[in-house]
Amino acid sequence: MKRIGILGGGQLGRMLLQQAANYPVETWVMESDPGCPAAGLCHHFVKGDIRNADDVVAFGRQVDVLTIEIENVSLEGLQALESEGRSVFPNSHALGIIRDKSVQKVFYAEHGIPTAPFRIIEDRSDLHRNLDFLPAVQKLATGGYDGRGVQILRTEDDLPKAFDARCVLEKLIPVHKEVAVMVAIDAQGGQTVYPAVEMVFDPLLNLLDMQVCPADLTESEGWKVEAVALSVARNLRSPGLFAVELLLDAAGNVYVNETAPRVHNSGHHSIEGNFCSQFDMLLRLLADYPAGNTDTILPSLMLNLLGEEGYAGTPVYEGLGEVLAMENAFVHVYGKRETRPGRKMGHVTLLGGNRHDLMHRAGIVRRTLKVKGTERI
Amino acid sequence: MKRIGILGGGQLGRMLLQQAANYPVETWVMESDPGCPAAGLCHHFVKGDIRNADDVVAFGRQVDVLTIEIENVSLEGLQALESEGRSVFPNSHALGIIRDKSVQKVFYAEHGIPTAPFRIIEDRSDLHRNLDFLPAVQKLATGGYDGRGVQILRTEDDLPKAFDARCVLEKLIPVHKEVAVMVAIDAQGGQTVYPAVEMVFDPLLNLLDMQVCPADLTESEGWKVEAVALSVARNLRSPGLFAVELLLDAAGNVYVNETAPRVHNSGHHSIEGNFCSQFDMLLRLLADYPAGNTDTILPSLMLNLLGEEGYAGTPVYEGLGEVLAMENAFVHVYGKRETRPGRKMGHVTLLGGNRHDLMHRAGIVRRTLKVKGTERI
Repeated sequence: MKRIGILGGGQLGRMLLQQAANYPVETWVMESDPGCPAAGLCHHFVKGDIRNADDVVAFGRQVDVLTIEIENVSLEGLQALESEGRSVFPNSHALGIIRDKSVQKVFYAEHGIPTAPFRIIEDRSDLHRNLDFLPAVQKLATGGYDGRGVQILRTEDDLPKAFDARCVLEKLIPVHKEVAVMVAIDAQGGQTVYPAVEMVFDPLLNLLDMQVCPADLTESEGWKVEAVALSVARNLRSPGLFAVELLLDAAGNVYVNETAPRVHNSGHHSIEGNFCSQFDMLLRLLADYPAGNTDTILPSLMLNLLGEEGYAGTPVYEGLGEVLAMENAFVHVYGKRETRPGRKMGHVTLLGGNRHDLMHRAGIVRRTLKVKGTERI
Repeated sequence: MKRIGILGGGQLGRMLLQQAANYPVETWVMESDPGCPAAGLCHHFVKGDIRNADDVVAFGRQVDVLTIEIENVSLEGLQALESEGRSVFPNSHALGIIRDKSVQKVFYAEHGIPTAPFRIIEDRSDLHRNLDFLPAVQKLATGGYDGRGVQILRTEDDLPKAFDARCVLEKLIPVHKEVAVMVAIDAQGGQTVYPAVEMVFDPLLNLLDMQVCPADLTESEGWKVEAVALSVARNLRSPGLFAVELLLDAAGNVYVNETAPRVHNSGHHSIEGNFCSQFDMLLRLLADYPAGNTDTILPSLMLNLLGEEGYAGTPVYEGLGEVLAMENAFVHVYGKRETRPGRKMGHVTLLGGNRHDLMHRAGIVRRTLKVKGTERI
């Protein structure tokens, strides 16, 4: 049996493991918290630090193929494993490009991939020398995650809140639409693309809040986003699954926002909405099976379940029964032991009907299903 | 979190646990073999004998609700747990009726549920007194499973091979079609029914070999099998999931063959073929959530992967890649450590196209995918 190792034990690992049980593979997870969402569903759980090169190497030597469910892993560890001939999805080359946003932006520019104009800023003083570039989005080069490490600087007045670290300063694109396209690249370089999904962000938490599939794009916009996403994935020269986030302006110009080299929040709808889910797809890549069918079964809407404001402690799921009574509402709770405001605790996928129906039903889910906690904070 | 206990750790438990990870439930499995298919996917694995009343009671006291994935559990243990107020799906009343085929047949007769004419036979000498009833199917009252304990006695010449035990002697129905209907009964008695599936048995192993959904029934046959299946489930007076197997003769008469009070081989196609799978449905019942949508997504064909003749030892799956290259072919391998001839090692579900397409593709899967083993026997 092929031994598949996953660095990280969050919900992405958990959903990957649910699917892994369909195949003759042995699953290994490394994560520092033995109570993490993925711990109970793997054959072998290893307590370790995914950011520590020694831990990653020791773990990787026990498996045949390695993948990640979070970018924040030891690149040095992965490189050492690759030099021993072990397969890593994505490879350290691609991960190295992606996880430093300044390197990622330069990669887009060098490969003629459309992205918002940008400057690389070393620190706050460097920022002061680039005031002519505002308004702009400031993105920390490293360490950002789930909306943390990204903010808008409109004028000089915003400078006090600016990050004092290496970052990307990116021209503010007047966003008309935001979409994501998932691309699978197999070990032989074969490409498979998913239909684009359209995303709606929560303006407060800057978390991916809701997404609809298929995206409402014109034919030419559809072709463009697909071509650009494929170009990103191909040029990274790595096997794996890549979630390419793209922005469109009102004129239909496409800009790559960023890329995640792994299963991604923007692909959760695929569990019920597409014949081959993103998790099934990644497993097929890892086990060297052919890619699955990415066709849409029915239009879908996915919304994240975030921990309610004012609550912490053991999660309490209110309104689950009411939501499950809705036709084709699929609930995924991630089994996290603690809730806190804005934490991703699960997601709900709604299938069927047109976009307006889906949005209407999403509103009902939002008002009905709440993740509270045993502690008021 | 609701604690859900499963008695038995085979593939049915495994697939139930894959789905359970979507809900805020804590899963417990009891089984004697710690290497069983379900062991790696539950929160708590308890080594114990499901046929032993003390083991069942001790296990059951640790959970809120209990279910089974095999009938062969201690009824006494379940009764003791029920008398303490614990929920058991199915309850001991229904399980007691179903797992003794002589009691099951009497139950059908008493409730006006159509079933083949039968006699209850105590032993071989009693059989000799009932030769006028041949040709007939002899079914062991207890202990049969997966086709074991069932045989046809055509004439007196077949008596030497007859089982010398309490059994049902059942008139041979000229079977035109064989179908199965899954019915879910919630704790409040609410009923939900799945579309009928049509089954094809392997004449040699008498194992459920292939099934197609939807069944090719006339409207009136469809209504009849549904009504009869609902009547069986309702009269068992138990919450749970019930797989009712029915025979139709050429005139369209319907006869209940037997009922399983649990998730069942005949429902495997529902994982990809229906919006709410049988596993999702049972979990909804156990967790007291509303029933899901049993509508068909696309026509489906499910075929069991049986261990090849001539092989034992660690399973080796040949042709998996070729099958996964087929559009909408979904493979489920059960993670059993040992193969043996005819053992259920997994299943494949094919989606889409008409019945002839599905049958054609099933033939390709049969010829391509083989479960061999590390030992020749």
